Amino acid sequence: MIAKTPITPYYAVIFTSERTEVREGYSNTADRMLEMAKGQEGYLGIESAREEIGITVSYWKDLDSIRKWKMNAEHLMAQEKGRKEWYQNYKTRICFVERDYEFNK
Amino acid sequence: MIAKTPITPYYAVIFTSERTEVREGYSNTADRMLEMAKGQEGYLGIESAREEIGITVSYWKDLDSIRKWKMNAEHLMAQEKGRKEWYQNYKTRICFVERDYEFNK
Repeated sequence: MIAKTPITPYYAVIFTSERTEVREGYSNTADRMLEMAKGQEGYLGIESAREEIGITVSYWKDLDSIRKWKMNAEHLMAQEKGRKEWYQNYKTRICFVERDYEFNK
Repeated sequence: MIAKTPITPYYAVIFTSERTEVREGYSNTADRMLEMAKGQEGYLGIESAREEIGITVSYWKDLDSIRKWKMNAEHLMAQEKGRKEWYQNYKTRICFVERDYEFNK
């Protein structure tokens, strides 16, 4: 689903990743992190797709919400495990969403 | 591939979409638009993945580059055709990338 974000401005975190061969534990942790993110203060929505690379974009009210989610204890453990096992490479980009527009049939 | 963008700041355009059932003409036009985007002034890279939704993030030097690409004549025709045939819904978000970091195994 395309995230139903509020009127601009808000923030986006673009997380682009390439996986390793390791599958074990990934889905459960990803599901758990998604559920937790949704409960965070300032969370606005998420969009995700994976083919050769994975792109997950999460939307947030402000930088403080992003910082708090990044430093969440369980999330820190998941990030650590991600670097050890699940991700070959990733890049995280913190963005200020200035403007948006949409089309609906 | 994860886009090899320069040091921040730069801009990102997050294009999130849901397709219709129409396949005809889509791949050719998408390939052509990708090739054209790469030739635009201020183009920095692109990342794309599709599952239930498609996410394409293109990176740009500044807002002027984004504006010029949006208004490119052949791209305008493709956008028009996209609304008519290929896309059920889409959302475009124009973002200022403030900060990024990466992990490589």
